[in-house]
Parts: sequence; structure tokens; C-alpha cells
Amino acid sequence: MTIRIGIMGYGNLGRGVECAIKQNPDMELKAVFTRRNPETVSILTEGTKVCSASEAKDMAGEIDVLILCGGSATDLPVQTPEYAKYFNVVDSFDTHAKIPEHFAAVDEAASASGHVAVISAGWDPGMFSLNRVYANAVLPDGCDYTFWGKGVSQGHSDAIRRIAGVKDARQYTIPVESVLEAIRNGETPELTTRQKHTRECFVVAEEGADKAKIEQEIVTMPNYFADYDTTVHFISEEEMKRDHANLPHGGFVLRSGRTGWDLEHRHVIEYSLKLDSNPEFTSSVIVACARAAFRMKNEGQKGCKTVLDIPPAYLSAKSGEELRAHYL
Amino acid sequence: MTIRIGIMGYGNLGRGVECAIKQNPDMELKAVFTRRNPETVSILTEGTKVCSASEAKDMAGEIDVLILCGGSATDLPVQTPEYAKYFNVVDSFDTHAKIPEHFAAVDEAASASGHVAVISAGWDPGMFSLNRVYANAVLPDGCDYTFWGKGVSQGHSDAIRRIAGVKDARQYTIPVESVLEAIRNGETPELTTRQKHTRECFVVAEEGADKAKIEQEIVTMPNYFADYDTTVHFISEEEMKRDHANLPHGGFVLRSGRTGWDLEHRHVIEYSLKLDSNPEFTSSVIVACARAAFRMKNEGQKGCKTVLDIPPAYLSAKSGEELRAHYL
Repeated sequence: MTIRIGIMGYGNLGRGVECAIKQNPDMELKAVFTRRNPETVSILTEGTKVCSASEAKDMAGEIDVLILCGGSATDLPVQTPEYAKYFNVVDSFDTHAKIPEHFAAVDEAASASGHVAVISAGWDPGMFSLNRVYANAVLPDGCDYTFWGKGVSQGHSDAIRRIAGVKDARQYTIPVESVLEAIRNGETPELTTRQKHTRECFVVAEEGADKAKIEQEIVTMPNYFADYDTTVHFISEEEMKRDHANLPHGGFVLRSGRTGWDLEHRHVIEYSLKLDSNPEFTSSVIVACARAAFRMKNEGQKGCKTVLDIPPAYLSAKSGEELRAHYL
Repeated sequence: MTIRIGIMGYGNLGRGVECAIKQNPDMELKAVFTRRNPETVSILTEGTKVCSASEAKDMAGEIDVLILCGGSATDLPVQTPEYAKYFNVVDSFDTHAKIPEHFAAVDEAASASGHVAVISAGWDPGMFSLNRVYANAVLPDGCDYTFWGKGVSQGHSDAIRRIAGVKDARQYTIPVESVLEAIRNGETPELTTRQKHTRECFVVAEEGADKAKIEQEIVTMPNYFADYDTTVHFISEEEMKRDHANLPHGGFVLRSGRTGWDLEHRHVIEYSLKLDSNPEFTSSVIVACARAAFRMKNEGQKGCKTVLDIPPAYLSAKSGEELRAHYL
């Protein structure tokens, strides 16, 4: 049985979901919904229609799972509870501090309507969360570490772009390798986010701009850069296009823990991602979660779920028999 | 509510389970069962009784989950289906090729009796399986790699011990670092187990034994060593005791996959374990699975399950609210 998917919002994430659906033969892209004029939006999938967001609810009977590709700041807090009234939905809500609040709102809507709503699908929250929970369940005595990067931070790139004289900018967050190595070797230092990461900035300056002043403004910028070890490189527009067009990202989740009657043995669990395209990888996780949402709904489940509630086998297109025979 | 645990079999694994229970305050060790004379078995937990294996069934009402700590070759194929008639059970059955058969036998018994039986808990099968399934679900187009080590292989150590003139031996399986590095950098070579690992042997020879002959017998031993890059070191009994008393192990699971409309972006997912004590880590996974078995049974589930069927949150002692607020 093919799972019929709708995409709400066609930016980097929506396009990533479209690509991921192409890789999963048990899924079919039924429609893309946009708040723009549908005639101005051209998508990659032949034969699939682009509709106005306002038409979505009328298509509830044709779509098994609606994937919400809006932003966490303003779109999803409204969209996810709203569309959970009519659809099984998946979102990638990633404002960690507001997850409990978002969960409560979505759970109320989805429980009332009898749909399954998976929130916070992606890699952090998402795959990283799974690894934090598994590692903590298995090693109750231990220390957790999450590192981000090497990867592009959009928020920090935007902050640089707002400086006078800056034409374009890309900021990479980079884990401190020596700290990672120490944890792998069994050390358990107490570390702030700042001690674990450095920041590298690539800047295209406007003609005649004062580069020394721009650099100074970057490295002293409060919250964003002031307390980090920050490097600034000025490059040409061509170099920016050639070398920094992608949105790579990734990171590391480690748990260093102890077992034994007197906690005499140490274990290090490490999970890492090295991603060429942050939005496409996030989309790939979302699409696997859409499969799980479809199955959970068909089982009679309802309400808000996260990756922590999903049996791993539900994410896979393969049968239980096949997974046990070849992947267990 | 405390989860009452019984341990069947008190070797390295049974002792590891006992230690893990001490680290999990929601669990209580109710009894250890042994096929030996119970009076000859002394355990670490004060106030817990050691009973004869034959008494186990009479204690069905006092034990929520019975953890089966026997071997996969002959113990578990008999014990797991048998005890699933009376208890919720967890085992660490690790003969990969026979998992479907074991699953079927256990599922029949557990479904009939209304109990939950989790099989193949540990790290491979277990945590490694989870990572293979998650990575395949998220990246359908890609290549899988599993490496074992650095760690002690008991079977290979035993094979060396059977050679005339060998008093004691320890064999370490070691992943080939250059191959790991190539995969991390996006290469997707086709590799056999042999190309991914080397073998390092530490041997205590009997007095007057012909060391050159022993070394020759090791490196040419079919199946075990002949096709591997094998190193042999002769050491003293004191060195063996001092440097090789533990059973460290670990390994790596990687998936290198592609996304994008034309599969133009590459992603590498890596999971690794570095374990001081193979049996204690395995035991820690088993104990987390016992918690899940208890919860699934209380929900009304029954039959045979693997880690692939368990919602991750069920393994954790923490509540859904706490996990969402702090680990998601």
C-alpha cells in the first residue's frame, strides 16, 4: 500500500522531503501546498500538483500524512496543532526549550481528532535525541556530551550579514577536536557549549569596506561570537559561490559511563553525523517518521508522538522478518 | 513500582546483570538461579537468595522479568521458549543466522502464555542492530559497514589454547583504521570481514615449547587466522594476568548514503562503542530491555520482541515528560 504524502511549505526542507519521497518506493507525493501563488512555484516531481495552502483541508481524504515544512519560530506552533485536526502530520519543530509546550498543544489537537502527529523529527532533535536516550538508558551512571558541526549555522551567518559593509557571509561551527579526543579516551570534563566549539567565518565585503572594522565587529559581537575562539576570512563572491553553496552540518553525541559493582569499568558510546546537506538529511528523517505515523494510525494509535515513542522497525520500509534476518 | 528481576545462570553475564540492577533504582534482584549446587555460588547482592534452577517456576509469582544468562549455542534455544511459558524473559541470543528460528520458537511460547519475551539484547545484536535499522530507514540509498574491536574474541582465544604447548592465550580483533577512515571520508569500498580486521594474539607458552611452531600453527589456522593479517606475541603468565585480565570490546557501525534529486549529497552516519567490559555492557542493555518487557506486558502486549520493536522511551527509567524536556 502506497503512503500518500502532502508537503506544506516548499523551501529547502520541503524540497528535501520531495527528494526523499523519490527514494522511498512505498511513498507517493500527492500535493505540495504553498502560501505563495501556486502558479509561481515549480517543483521537481512530474505530475504532482501545487496547491494553495488554503486548499489543504479539502484534500484530507487524499493524503495519509501531511509533512509540515515551516519554521519553528512562528509557523509550526500554529500549523501543527491546526493541521493535526485534519491529518496525520510530521514536523521538525526544533526549539528545544519549547518542545513540552508544543507537544501539549499538538497532543490535544491530535488526540481529539484521532490522528497521529510526530513532532521534532530531524537530527537534533531527532537522531541525536534517540542516541542520548539509548545511551542514558543503558549507562545510568555517566556524562553526556553533544557537539555540533562542522557545519553552517544560519543564525550566525545572518548576524554577520547585518554588519555594515558585509555583502554575504557564511559561519561554520566547529567542534574542538582535542576535547572530543579527551572524552573518547575516558575523560569526563565539565564543558560549556563555548568550550566545545570554535567559529569560522567567511565574509564577502562590499567594495571599499573597512575589513579590519568588520572583523572587529564580528569577533566582539555579544552572545554570537564574543566568547568563542573566532576566525574571520575575507573571500571573493566567486569563492563564496564555489566553496560555500551547500549547507553541510553534523555533530557528535557521546556518553561516557561506568559499570561494575564498584563502577570500575568505563564505556564510551559515540554517535556522529557528517552531512553534506542539513535540510536533505533532516527531510530524510522526517519521511521515515511519516511512515511510522501512518503505521501507528493504522494500528489505532492517536495523539502526539516523538521519535522516542516510535518502535524503530516502524521507520523502515522493510518487514519485521527481513529486519530480523538481515539487520538484527 | 519496583521491577522484580530473576537471573538464570551466574557467569560473567549473570554477574554483569547483578551489577547493572544495582545501578537502576527501579529494579530489585529477587533471586539468582543456578544449575550448580546453590550453596557453592556466592553472589554480590546482600539479602538475595541463590536457588536451584529447578525451583524457578515455583517463583513465577514473585518475579516480573527473568533474565536468561546462558549461552546461545545450547542453553538459550531450550531455555528461552521454556521459561517464556512462565515469565516475561530477556535473553542475549547472539547467533545471528539462527535469530529467525529462535524468534519463531520464543514467539510461539510467549504468545501462548501471554508473556513478553525480548531476545537478542546486547550490542551486536542489540545497539548495533538499532543503528543499522535507523541508518537504513533514514538513508535508503547507501552502504553499510560493521567493524568489531578492538576487543577480545573468546572463540579465537580458545582456538589458540587448543594448540599443543600453549598454556594461555588472548586474541584481539582490531579494525583496520585506514579502511574506517576511507569510509568516513565518503568512500564506499566493498569489503569482506577479513579486509576490515586484523588479529593480534598474546600467548603464554609452556616451558620448553617450540614458539616458532606455535606461531606457525596460529597464523596458518584455517577459518580463524589463515586469511587475516595476524600478529603473535609471546608473553609471561604475569603479563597475561596484569595486562589481559579484562574483556574489552567494541566496534563501529557506519552507513554512507546519498540524498538529493540526483543523489548528489553524501552523508555518513557512524555509531561506535569502546567498552572496558563486554559482559557488563551487554548486561546493561539487557537490564534496560527488562524494563521495556515489564512495561509492554503491563500494556497488554505479548509474544517475542527485539530491540527493533521497543519504543526507545520504554528502555528509560525517566518519564516521557522528563525525556521530552531534557533529552529530546
